[in-house]
Amino acid sequence: MTTLVFGHKSPDTDSTGSPIIWAWYLKTVHGVDAKPVLLGEPNTEAAFMLKRWNLDKPEIVSTVADGTPVVIVDTNNPAELPDNINNCDIKAIIDHHKLVGGLETAGPIHIVMEPLACTATIMFKSIGKHMAQMPDDIKGAMLSCILSDTLEFRSPTTTDEDKAIAHDLAKQLGIDIPSYASEMFEAKSDVSSFSDAELLRMDSKEYTVAGKDFRVSVLETTAPKIVLDRKDSLMASMTDVAAEDGADQVLLFVVDILNEEATLLVPNDLVKTVAEKSFGATVTGDTVVLPGVMSRKKQIIPNLKV
Amino acid sequence: MTTLVFGHKSPDTDSTGSPIIWAWYLKTVHGVDAKPVLLGEPNTEAAFMLKRWNLDKPEIVSTVADGTPVVIVDTNNPAELPDNINNCDIKAIIDHHKLVGGLETAGPIHIVMEPLACTATIMFKSIGKHMAQMPDDIKGAMLSCILSDTLEFRSPTTTDEDKAIAHDLAKQLGIDIPSYASEMFEAKSDVSSFSDAELLRMDSKEYTVAGKDFRVSVLETTAPKIVLDRKDSLMASMTDVAAEDGADQVLLFVVDILNEEATLLVPNDLVKTVAEKSFGATVTGDTVVLPGVMSRKKQIIPNLKV
Repeated sequence: MTTLVFGHKSPDTDSTGSPIIWAWYLKTVHGVDAKPVLLGEPNTEAAFMLKRWNLDKPEIVSTVADGTPVVIVDTNNPAELPDNINNCDIKAIIDHHKLVGGLETAGPIHIVMEPLACTATIMFKSIGKHMAQMPDDIKGAMLSCILSDTLEFRSPTTTDEDKAIAHDLAKQLGIDIPSYASEMFEAKSDVSSFSDAELLRMDSKEYTVAGKDFRVSVLETTAPKIVLDRKDSLMASMTDVAAEDGADQVLLFVVDILNEEATLLVPNDLVKTVAEKSFGATVTGDTVVLPGVMSRKKQIIPNLKV
Repeated sequence: MTTLVFGHKSPDTDSTGSPIIWAWYLKTVHGVDAKPVLLGEPNTEAAFMLKRWNLDKPEIVSTVADGTPVVIVDTNNPAELPDNINNCDIKAIIDHHKLVGGLETAGPIHIVMEPLACTATIMFKSIGKHMAQMPDDIKGAMLSCILSDTLEFRSPTTTDEDKAIAHDLAKQLGIDIPSYASEMFEAKSDVSSFSDAELLRMDSKEYTVAGKDFRVSVLETTAPKIVLDRKDSLMASMTDVAAEDGADQVLLFVVDILNEEATLLVPNDLVKTVAEKSFGATVTGDTVVLPGVMSRKKQIIPNLKV
């Protein structure tokens, strides 16, 4: 039976690239019949990566049959995985997020989690000497994952290991990091074709704080104006998205990669309170700029208060 | 603040030795102020190991203050840890059991789980080249953990890695494995000083099957007769122990290490049904022999049916 390797339901670059990397490793080094799949449409940056490195776009699956051998990468959160994930034959988990709890297995399995910026960085370390066998297209995916998750080393989640491994890969591939990262971020910033609801759900995770369910959405962009010009219709769309997804409120943080700040849309008093209590911000209009805020994992989630 | 390293509440050799190994590693290699502690009295085999290798018996703690930095080894089951474990600052988890779910962290942490027989085997691999710095007493603990958890390589949980690492350590230490393992197992078999209730709780894990809560207890011994001679009072004690611990039934498997079989005590029809449905056994009296059954993790738990 083929082992499916997948990340979370909103595939960004790391959640698209890591399954490709790990399926390659399982197949080539361990002879496992493994296949990368996606649980949703990759975002524009991930699509750019696939094209740039001539990688096949993995098949998008919406369900996984009970008993299927699976490897979960870039998440350990059941909410971001198929509903029946605990009925799958989970073979391994490789992740760099906080431990959420909720995944269960019938027997002991391989799990590696490390507080690094990127799943691909952990994979680089695990693959070790077998990196020598890795073709350039897979190395390109690996480099892309690290540059994406670290926002070219600007995110406070970046560790020395992420940085060193990215530089090593770039050197091997003859890639100039600043210009390649710019191309990636431009691809990510090209959000014109998405509806408001799609933008709100694109890179979004649910968190509960003091009994309130938030959909915490982040849009990382080098062109925040394009998104902020749509703020009225984005805020209008939040009510429907929250209702449809069973959340109390959508929080949209527009992260300006180059200026290293986030703008939070403030459609109502609840979000105003969140901005004030969580980030000590002074809110006067329907947006508020949060200087230095770039990471949901490190700066937004741990500080959320209502 | 000192980082506490501990295993589960019923410290066997692995859950006593692994905290000692990892605290040594954190201190010596990473300069972390780390200290091994125990969540209960070590069993007789673990006590033998401490004495044999001149290791200080770690302090036994019954509570851990909220916010304490901790490393959890040899379990990922909140039921086997302090009640407030999710309020501690969990720094890392190193384990070889199935993923139970329930542990949660505020941010990403280090987690390594592998389907190996023993936590110490995973540690050997993680410590890597720094093994060269490890003093003999800590290596002795490591070897003891592996021999204990693999029942000297007899348990079906044993992997080639456990075996190879144990042989490597034994060679470095000049230890003859068969005679050292015999000494360990004799120490484990010396249960005369324990009350019936203590024996039933000594190496025990709770599992729920079809709505029934079982306390699944295993006594590994080279002298099963000593335990089986007490079967009437052990079975009489099961009702009280189950009631006190909020379980429906205690299952006691007396594992004969040398003959590679388990004897299950059968105090009532519920356990008779368990024996028949789970192991295809034919039960005629108040005990039943299960040939080849040595591992709770690999042979008992996955097969439990009511």
